[in-house]
This record gives sequence, structure tokens and C-alpha cells, in this order.
Amino acid sequence: VGPTFDPGFTTPEMMGVFSPANTVAAILRFEAALAVALADAGIAPNEAKEAIAGACLEDIDDPGEILASTWRSGTPIIALVDAIRSRIDDPGHREWVHHGATSQDAIDTGRMLQVQSGFQVLERETEGVARSLGALVVRYRKQPHMARTFLQDARPTTFGARAAGWLSQTLDALAGLRQNRESLRVQLGGPSGSLVELGQSAGAVTAAVAGQLGLVAPLMCWHADRSPVWRVAGVVGVLSRTMAKIATDIALLAQSSVAEVRVRPGGSSSMPGKANPMDAVRVVAAAHACDGFADMLTGAPTIELDRGVGGWHQEWLALPMLFQTAAAAVEGMAACLYGLEVDGEQMASRVDGEGRAALLDADFRSVDAVLFRLEAEVGPV
Amino acid sequence: VGPTFDPGFTTPEMMGVFSPANTVAAILRFEAALAVALADAGIAPNEAKEAIAGACLEDIDDPGEILASTWRSGTPIIALVDAIRSRIDDPGHREWVHHGATSQDAIDTGRMLQVQSGFQVLERETEGVARSLGALVVRYRKQPHMARTFLQDARPTTFGARAAGWLSQTLDALAGLRQNRESLRVQLGGPSGSLVELGQSAGAVTAAVAGQLGLVAPLMCWHADRSPVWRVAGVVGVLSRTMAKIATDIALLAQSSVAEVRVRPGGSSSMPGKANPMDAVRVVAAAHACDGFADMLTGAPTIELDRGVGGWHQEWLALPMLFQTAAAAVEGMAACLYGLEVDGEQMASRVDGEGRAALLDADFRSVDAVLFRLEAEVGPV
Amino acid sequence: VGPTFDPGFTTPEMMGVFSPANTVAAILRFEAALAVALADAGIAPNEAKEAIAGACLEDIDDPGEILASTWRSGTPIIALVDAIRSRIDDPGHREWVHHGATSQDAIDTGRMLQVQSGFQVLERETEGVARSLGALVVRYRKQPHMARTFLQDARPTTFGARAAGWLSQTLDALAGLRQNRESLRVQLGGPSGSLVELGQSAGAVTAAVAGQLGLVAPLMCWHADRSPVWRVAGVVGVLSRTMAKIATDIALLAQSSVAEVRVRPGGSSSMPGKANPMDAVRVVAAAHACDGFADMLTGAPTIELDRGVGGWHQEWLALPMLFQTAAAAVEGMAACLYGLEVDGEQMASRVDGEGRAALLDADFRSVDAVLFRLEAEVGPV
Amino acid sequence: VGPTFDPGFTTPEMMGVFSPANTVAAILRFEAALAVALADAGIAPNEAKEAIAGACLEDIDDPGEILASTWRSGTPIIALVDAIRSRIDDPGHREWVHHGATSQDAIDTGRMLQVQSGFQVLERETEGVARSLGALVVRYRKQPHMARTFLQDARPTTFGARAAGWLSQTLDALAGLRQNRESLRVQLGGPSGSLVELGQSAGAVTAAVAGQLGLVAPLMCWHADRSPVWRVAGVVGVLSRTMAKIATDIALLAQSSVAEVRVRPGGSSSMPGKANPMDAVRVVAAAHACDGFADMLTGAPTIELDRGVGGWHQEWLALPMLFQTAAAAVEGMAACLYGLEVDGEQMASRVDGEGRAALLDADFRSVDAVLFRLEAEVGPV
Repeated sequence: VGPTFDPGFTTPEMMGVFSPANTVAAILRFEAALAVALADAGIAPNEAKEAIAGACLEDIDDPGEILASTWRSGTPIIALVDAIRSRIDDPGHREWVHHGATSQDAIDTGRMLQVQSGFQVLERETEGVARSLGALVVRYRKQPHMARTFLQDARPTTFGARAAGWLSQTLDALAGLRQNRESLRVQLGGPSGSLVELGQSAGAVTAAVAGQLGLVAPLMCWHADRSPVWRVAGVVGVLSRTMAKIATDIALLAQSSVAEVRVRPGGSSSMPGKANPMDAVRVVAAAHACDGFADMLTGAPTIELDRGVGGWHQEWLALPMLFQTAAAAVEGMAACLYGLEVDGEQMASRVDGEGRAALLDADFRSVDAVLFRLEAEVGPV
Repeated sequence: VGPTFDPGFTTPEMMGVFSPANTVAAILRFEAALAVALADAGIAPNEAKEAIAGACLEDIDDPGEILASTWRSGTPIIALVDAIRSRIDDPGHREWVHHGATSQDAIDTGRMLQVQSGFQVLERETEGVARSLGALVVRYRKQPHMARTFLQDARPTTFGARAAGWLSQTLDALAGLRQNRESLRVQLGGPSGSLVELGQSAGAVTAAVAGQLGLVAPLMCWHADRSPVWRVAGVVGVLSRTMAKIATDIALLAQSSVAEVRVRPGGSSSMPGKANPMDAVRVVAAAHACDGFADMLTGAPTIELDRGVGGWHQEWLALPMLFQTAAAAVEGMAACLYGLEVDGEQMASRVDGEGRAALLDADFRSVDAVLFRLEAEVGPV
Repeated sequence: VGPTFDPGFTTPEMMGVFSPANTVAAILRFEAALAVALADAGIAPNEAKEAIAGACLEDIDDPGEILASTWRSGTPIIALVDAIRSRIDDPGHREWVHHGATSQDAIDTGRMLQVQSGFQVLERETEGVARSLGALVVRYRKQPHMARTFLQDARPTTFGARAAGWLSQTLDALAGLRQNRESLRVQLGGPSGSLVELGQSAGAVTAAVAGQLGLVAPLMCWHADRSPVWRVAGVVGVLSRTMAKIATDIALLAQSSVAEVRVRPGGSSSMPGKANPMDAVRVVAAAHACDGFADMLTGAPTIELDRGVGGWHQEWLALPMLFQTAAAAVEGMAACLYGLEVDGEQMASRVDGEGRAALLDADFRSVDAVLFRLEAEVGPV
Repeated sequence: VGPTFDPGFTTPEMMGVFSPANTVAAILRFEAALAVALADAGIAPNEAKEAIAGACLEDIDDPGEILASTWRSGTPIIALVDAIRSRIDDPGHREWVHHGATSQDAIDTGRMLQVQSGFQVLERETEGVARSLGALVVRYRKQPHMARTFLQDARPTTFGARAAGWLSQTLDALAGLRQNRESLRVQLGGPSGSLVELGQSAGAVTAAVAGQLGLVAPLMCWHADRSPVWRVAGVVGVLSRTMAKIATDIALLAQSSVAEVRVRPGGSSSMPGKANPMDAVRVVAAAHACDGFADMLTGAPTIELDRGVGGWHQEWLALPMLFQTAAAAVEGMAACLYGLEVDGEQMASRVDGEGRAALLDADFRSVDAVLFRLEAEVGPV
């Protein structure tokens, strides 16, 4: 069905969100919403609305072929609009398909619908990670543990405090996802970007399309303003790097010479029994890739005037991959925490008596506050 | 006084914000606020508070030397605390300097104070750019102008609509700066990161230090959680790339074969009279560098456990440079807009009669909405 | 068969090079070569060699499943070695499969064989681009053409000289590919990285494996030294950015207001007849992605001691994608040049009489020298 | 004298190489060499050659002012050429200053002279690091030591073999520096890039300028072809990441729970006596920054046609910073190795008897081969 990449860098659910079929289906949702909005604004006849909306409900047989047509004809929308029109009997209705819109309107709006779903998947998985971290905080709230700065033993802390630090960073990342999801914008600008073709109804049509799709109607179209995409890259990058931070710490605590935690052992082709922290490895690898896709999006060639020569098209690779790799990082983290065993005795053995005494007097209210925030924002552990 | 870089990549004002003297002064503000908080919490005596706060008011003679000591002794705070203590007569007061804190508390909090100032400078300059763009929108609201997609003539729009697109993206960037500035966090964790040393008063001391400095008191210290810094990098990167977008468009419209705008001519060593768009060049170059510093910050080596082996220290270069280059990009943009002349006739000449007629019927309410937003968020043009 | 990405960012041929089937087949070539080398060094019996080499000749039924097993068991090599052993009747021969080696030996060597093929594909395609550029140089050697610096008209040159500049950069990039291909190293270190398990025969076995596979035998294994991969990223990045440079220039010369070249028109969903330079767009987008993968590889987390926690595994995504996107960029460039029409009259019209006269006196020996280099390094145009 | 950055990210010697004074002096060397070449080619009179060469020998009073003028007038060369001319009495000689050249010729060639010096500094420092590593290899050739893969104990190796791995990577990096230094190109293209102004003498003048300056004369000017700069970024990035690899390993081996090596202790403001591996920290931080500058150079906006709108100017920041930070990384590595103590007993204690026995039989010829290479390429340890 198309070029593939290593299965460790995605999850089945996120593969579904950004599959060719779903990519085309999201664009069809845009075209249907546009037809409804055009009719409601009195531009297109009501019969056209129903015909088009109906035609957009059916799946397309070969979505991969539609997408591949991009690189022959310049845009997948020509083939897709043809496919929709071929399902409509009345020639007078056909002309209203995609009316007033340009390819980028359909593609960007479709993509935002996928991003919306992608966020929902990431949020749900991240909530699971947060709950697992919360359980660690509760269980190891007073577990003596050595803090390490510059990889040198520093002063005593608790493992609960360490986990609360991980949790706090994760909750911040989760909040970023939620906030960004609420701000995703419909794209509608038409060929010139200023919706001249829709005359006085431009604002009403934009609002109606956005409303149907659960997206925000922006003041201006963002054909040439990719800052909404940069912000998506920003919050997903924060999430994946947060996962990498926790995974790196776990791998360090799992070192043979430290042995304060144990992980689900990944195998070795030459040393059966070796406990390679493969889940942490997957998190770090996927998160690094995710970070690379974030940089790809933000570092893209500047859009020249109203549509770029490549700066927009690179998103077609980078944006789906950003979500694929982020999903792999979060899933890997969930697996890593699921298989985590804490060796409290080993941890305590690196803290001397004076240190343990100091911990007894310590103020754990900040740890409690993080747990409180978890309950408020995610729910009970 | 230290290693230098090309003067085009900063501004005098931002040089001041991140100068060695100001870097040390910001750390002194932290140490003074900490002493006050310790005394107010009943940990340190009131006399110590006054002695320390007084000692922190004076400038340090050789801030460059303090900063350079980092790389000999491991942290500039040893030398700085010594300097503060040497100004305090009563040995019993001296011990309260930096009490409960670790080097990273002082350095990160000092840096956040500089970032706060850095944001204020960027915001003020960006407001100026927004006003200039607003003036373009007002003046050229109905100016016929050709939209270009893929660098090919597309359909007519107005130059006002183009400028409104630039303005809309700029206002979004400005909002990001303001929002992030309000979220800057004090750093206070002590040697282990969990403020064990301050016992039950940990929360109160953190809040008191934050309150004095106009920063937010976080639930947990963020020694090992660099996501606050990643968010700073995110919003500054969005700003600088927004400036680069506008500058690129201006350079394209100023091409000899297009000639729809004219810019302040930069000179040529071989062709006197050539109108090189040097202000746009500066914006693009500085913004690209700024983007690189943003990537440097987000792509840093993961902090290992409680303080990293290099992942934190790289911020000492990258974070100031992020702001220096962003300031250059915004200043360059202001100069570019200041010297901009629009050739309305030339613009109109690429739009045919039918196109001009369509523009007469066009809905400029989205353009008006952007202007309204400008007034609401920045003030009258 | 696995997660997919946009078809515009690869080519069928490069998809084949990095397909799951070919990935597994390349590892089988390593295991076969190792068995031969072990037997020739007198470590394994000759019968085992033949049995193993025979078992490695057959394809694996479900290569995707082998690769996916990585993320369950830690390495695909456990499942693959099991599959090879299951084809060998004599239990005494089975033990020699993968003897002395570690997973990374098999995976890295397999990957280098794919990289070797990947280079061959890129080189052949780049040679085609170079020939097309050479034809432009020959044809437009004296075609008056305006040089543009800072996007402003500068002084006259010829279009042949411009094409010679493109060609010169392309030939340098091609030389980099060839040189790097000749330096690709076999990987063989065993579990500790120092081949202790092979005793005095370590060097001989390494050389024999390398010799069979057409790879270089390094002095030391490079498990933890990823600089060979960084160098691959370097030369492929240079190639893709070179393609982006030429594509950008073509898009600029094809602008409606410049119109000095025409390209194969990509379509528009709203404006039939618009000549969007889609081939150039594809080059720029793919090259930008390729550059991102190069950064992903060079910016990877540092390998910790003898095998990294993620820093190696990220290559499994980034290295194949580097070649996929590079192939798309070169193929796009070939298409772009194939469809290129030069409007000599339009070009000449921007050069005044004095400029044309100067061109008549110009020294085209540097242009000729580039053509001579093309013939020497690629063959006749 | 200009904007500054943290002193830890450079060295005094590299500060000198890229100081404003040296930047201007390098450009003066170009202008002098050009005058000589013009006269030798019979274009300029011999008296002009002597007058100009003499005028270029004197330092410029305020080099910072010359460089700052860039951002007012578009190029520093206008002010610099004026300064040279003001030193020449005969007006007839003055016109030959900078004859046939454009600003970019002078700036790029000057920069390549600085890069040449920068390479020499890096090479000498890297040779010192290689010698220190060689001494470790010799001393710990048979020292039992545990290999760690995925941060888990794997199989025994020797510390000598580990150091030989570090050395091998370092020698590869050094070879890359040397090779690139030999390929640095003079820049000479004139205003149009094709040296039309010099007519039939273009090639001879280019060769003569290159010969005087110890640079290569390219077939074509590289105004718009930045691949030579990308290659510089490539080899310097390989060097700095190699330093980071070694530093990371040392920090891991110096962990309190591992304690197989000890480093020069950096101080702590709260925990006197803590052995923070500050030299390793500096290496990692500086190398990460260096890598960021390498990405800045390779990821720059594509040069549009014959001179870019920002894509070239960003080099003015990134290229000097690439060398500054690389020098800091290498110097930090030298310090780190200078202060390194190896605890052989602690190392051996993690290897069991069977492992030690296996090491006795091991083939150290690969280690010896690396030492042989060190002697051949750098000299005796």
C-alpha cells in the first residue's frame, strides 16, 4: 500500500489515524461541511448540499491512489473532487463540490481533523502514564533515595519525590496537548487566500464549516502562516522529550551497578538473561525521532507569499510522523512503567542514617500538591 | 570582556539584558530575595536578611571574572557567594547567604529574570512591528494585488489582506510571548531538588522568593525538567520565524522583475545604486540563527537524573543567544517596514479588470477583525 | 505490511532497497558470510558453513514479523537466528549460526549493505541529473541571462554559466557519494565489542566477512562509534540540499513575473491551467525532509558506553528515511529538468546591449572545465 | 567591543582566530592578493599592486566599526575599501582596489583563511587528545573492564580496548579535519558570479589569488553553492560529537556507583568535596552547541539564485561559533583526560575469573593497530 517504516516507531491506533484511508476520509468531511455551509449561506442550492454530503459519506476505493496522484497532477484534490462528482447524478449539483475552496483548504482542514484525533489518542495514553506515575508517587512517597547531580551522589531525597517530578512534567505536557487541541483551526481561504469568491458570505461560511467540524474559525486563513503547525510541533515535542527524560532516568537507575529499579528484560542474541531496558530504549529512540520531526516542521523553508515551493508539502511527511513517533514514545513509556520494579532496600542503602532522619522531617506537601493536581486534571489514581 | 559575535545578530538593548553585569546582578536579586524569604519564614535572623540584601545591592566589580570562574571551579556561585559574604561584617550573618539553595537555583532564577526582561523588550519591539503592519493594512485595504501560490500568479487579493495576514501571525506570536512571560517560574530545590533542607518551610520560602521577583512558584522544582525552557524556545522561535516570513515576502515583492514594493537600499561594493533589501536579509539571517538556538535548547542532551552532564550548561549559551537573535530579527523587521514603499500602480497592473471588480465586492470584515484585534491587544495604530 | 508514509517522499526503487524483505535478506547475507569466515578460520566445521550458508539463501516468509519482534524481545536477531537454525538438520551445525557475533553486528552490517545499494541508486540517478545539467550548459553556453543577487538584478551572466554552477555543485555531491560508498565498514565486535570470543582469529574473521560483502574491515568495531553513520548522513545531506538549490532557482526563474523558464505544469483544483512547478516543489519538500533525517542521525543521543539507550535504535527509522527522501529529491530533480523549457528571448531581454557585448568577450573556460569534469567523472553528455 | 557570549564556549586562541581584528585582517589579505594577481595578469599596473599591497599590510583602527557598518550600508567592504583607498596617494592606483571583485569574494575568502587557521588550532588540540588517549591505551592495554551495553553489564573487555575505540574515532575525526583544510577554496566571482569583468584573465587571476593564500582555485565560484561550508560543518561536527562521546563515557564511569575512573573535581556551592565532572560537562555542552551550529549552517535557507536573502549572512554568526564551540569541546576533553585517574582494581572487580581468563587469550592486535595508526598520523605517544 505504500512505503513503510519501522513498526517500533508507531502504534496501531496512530497508524489508523494517519492511514491513507483516514487521510482521504478527513478531506471528504471537509468537502461535506463546505457544501452544507454554502447551502446554509444561500450560495448553493439545498439539493446540492444533500447530494454532496451524501457522496462524501462513502469511502473512496483506493485512497493510496488518490494521494499518489498528488505528485502527478499537483494535488490530490483534483482526483478526489472528480471522484465525488462522479457519485452525483445532477450535473447542476456537481459544480458546487469544493466551490470557493482551494486544494490547501481541503488538505489542511483534513489534516487538522486527523491532528485532533491524534491529540485525543496521545492524551488518553499520556493520562495512563500519569496515573502510573501517580501510583509510584503514592507508593514511594517516603522511600529514601539518593539524588544524583552531574551523575554524582548528591543529597537524599525520596523516590516519591523523583516520581512526582516526572509526574509534574507529564501533567504540564498533557495540559499543553489539551490546550492546543482546543485551538485547531479550520482552513478556508480560496485560491487567493482572501475568500474573495464568497463575497459577503466569507465569514459565515468559514464559521459554519468550523462549527460542523469542531474546529476554530480564524480571523484570517493560514495558508501562508504555518504558526499553528509550529505550535502543534511544540507541544508534541514537549511531550516526547518528557517521556525521554523519564526513560533515561529509569535506564540509569536500572544500571547493573545501581540496580535501584528493574525493568521488563528485553532479550539479547548473545547473552540470554541480560535485562536490556528495551521499553526505555524505544521511548528514547522514538522521542528523538519525534523531536526531529518537530524541528522539520519548525525549520521548514519559509512559505513564499501565498503558498510555498515545498515548505508546505514537507508537512505531509513530518506532521503524521510527529504523531506516529510520539505515540510510540508514550506507549513505550506506559510499557516501561508497567514492568517497573523498585528495589527499596537497594535505594535506601545509598542513603546514610543522617539522611534518612532528615527525610523524616521533610515537607512532602509539594509531592501531595502534584498528586492533587493529578486527581483534578486526570482523575483518581 | 569576552568572546564576541557579529553585531548584526543582536541589539544594544538585548545586549544589555544578557550582559555579564546583568547576569550577575540577576543572580544577586535571587540571593537577596532568598535571604528575605528565609528571615520571613523564621529560618534566618532578620539582621542577616538586611545584611545580605544590602550586600546584594552593590554591583560586582568584575562580573566576567565571576562567570569565567564557572569553568575552573564548577559553578560561578562559589565565587559569587564569597563576594557577597566578604561584604558582610557579622560572620553569623554570612552563613545565611545562599542557605538551602544550590547553584542551579540561583543561576536558573537569575536567568528567568533576564528572560522576563528579554520578553519585555521583544514584546515592545513586536508591538511596534504590529503597529506598522496595521498602518499598511489601513492604507492598502483595497489596493488590488496579485496573490502568488507556488510563486505563480493566482487570483487577485488586496495588499491590505496580505498585510493583515502578516499582522494576524504577528499578533499570535505576541500573544505567545505575553503568555509565556506570565508563566516564568522561580527555581528553588536545594542540593537534592526536594528542599529537604528547609523542612516544613519549603513551600513558604519558595512562594516568598517567587513573589518578590514577579515569578511563579511551581509545585516542584524544575532542575531536571527543562520543559519551561523548551516553552520559552517555542514562543521565541514562533516570533522569529514570523518575522522571517514577512521579510521573505517583502524581498520577493521587491524583486527587480516584480517591483511592487521598494525597500531602503543596502549598498553594494561593486554596483552602487543597487537596492539590496538588507533589512530583510538581516531578519532572515537572524531568525534562522534564532531558530537554531531554539532547536539547540529543545534538542539538548536529556538531563540525567537530578542535574545533567552538559544538558543544562548548553542553555548558558543558547538561551541568551535565542533572545539576542530574536531581537535582531524584530529590529530588522521594524527597519524593513519603516523603509517600505508600496507601488500601488505596479501592484494593480498585474490584476485584470475582472479581478478588480471582484475585489470591489469582497468582504473585508476579516481584515477589519484583525485591525480590531490589533487595537484591543496593542492599542491604536 | 506496516506503517506507511506519503508516496511522494520515496521512489519505488529505494522502497525496494529498504523494504522489510530486503532488510532481513541483508542480515542473512551477513550471517552466511560469518559462517564462511568462521569455517575458513578453522573455528567452525566446513559442514556447518555449508549448512548455514544454504539456510541463509532462502527468503524469510514474514520479514515484517521478524522486524516487529524487535520491540517485544529486544532484537530481531533472536527470531531470525531461530528461523535459520530451524532450516538446519544437524544440531551440531546449528550452534555455529551467529557464533561470536552480537545483534548489532548483524543489524549494522545488514544496514551497510542496504546503504551500499542505496548509494548505487542515488549515484545512478544523480548521474542522470548531471547529464541533463550538462546538456543545458552546452545548449545555453552563450545565452545572455541576468544574475540576481539578493533577488535584485545584478550583472549579466549566461544561463550556461548558471547551469555550470549547478552542475559543479552536483558533481561535488556525486563525488562525495562515491567516496563514502567505498568506505562503508563491516560491523563485527561480538557482545563486548572487542571480539574476545574469537581469540586470535578475530582479525582474520573480520577481514573475511568484509571481503565477502564488499565492505571495509575497520581496525576497531564501531558499535559505539557512530561517526561512519554521521558521514553517510553528511554526504546524502549535501546531495539533497544541492537538489533543493537547483529546484529553488528554477521555481524563481519560472515565476509569472520572470518567466525565463517554463516547467511541466502541476495542476490546481481551483485554477486549471496554472503552471505550478510541482517537480521543484517535490524536490524542496523531500530535500528538507532528508536534511531533517541527516540532523536526526547526527544529533542522536550519545551512545552510552558500548551500546546506547536509544541513540542507536533511532537510526532504524532515520537512516532508511534519509535514503528514501534523497531518492525522491533526485528523482524530482530529474523530472524537473526533463520538463524544463528555457525562454532565451525573455532571458536576453533583461540584459542590455552593453551587457551582451561584455558577454561576447567573456572567458567561458571555467564553464568548459566543468563540462570536461562531467565527461571525465560521468561520461559523455 | 561587541556582544559577548559565555567564556566556557570558546578558547582564547580560537577567540583570536575569529576576532573582529582578524576578520578584517583576513579580508585585507584577500584584497592584497587580488591586487598582486591583477598586476601579474597585466590588468592593473605594477605600481598599483605595490601601493595596494602596502596599504593592506597595516591594521585597521576600528575593525568592529567596519563590521558593524555591514548592517547600515549592506556590506563591510564599502567601508573597508574606502579605508584602503584612503591610504593610497595616487588616485590612479586607488581604482584597482577590489577591482573585478564583489563583497562576497572578499568576505568568503577572508573567512576561509580564518577557517584554515581554525582547523590548524583544532588539529593541534585534537592531536594532543589523541596522544593522551594513546597513553591510556598503552597503560591499560590488558586492564580487565566490563563492557556495558544498554547500560547493563555485558561481557568483559579491557579498558585499553575502550580507549582504543575512543582513539580510533578521534583519529578518523582528525583525518577529516586535515582533508577538509586541504580543500578550502578561494572565492572569486565578481558581481555576476562569472568573472565577466576579468575577461580572458579570469582563470589566471583566480589561480594567482588562490596560490598566494594557500587555498584551492575552484572551477566555478561558489557564491551560491554553499556545499564547501556544509563540508566544513560536517567534519567539525564529527569532531565535537566524538569529544562528547568520550566525555559521556567518562562521566558514566565516574558515577558514584561505578567509580571506575575519577576526574578533576568541579566544585559545588552546597556540597564541598563533591566530584562533579566539570570538564566532561563542558565538553558535552560545547559539543552540543557546536552540533547546533553545524545544523544552522547545513539547514540554512537556500541561496536564491546568485546571492541569498539571509542564507549566506547567517554563516557570519554560525561559522565562527562552530569553531569557537569545537575548540571548547576539544580543550575540555584535553583537560578531562589530563585529570583522569583510572581505578584498575575497581574495574577488575566487576569481571569474574572466567572473564579475566578469556581476556588473557584475547587478540589485542586491533588495539595495537590503532596505536600504530596514532604513531603514523600524529607521532609517538
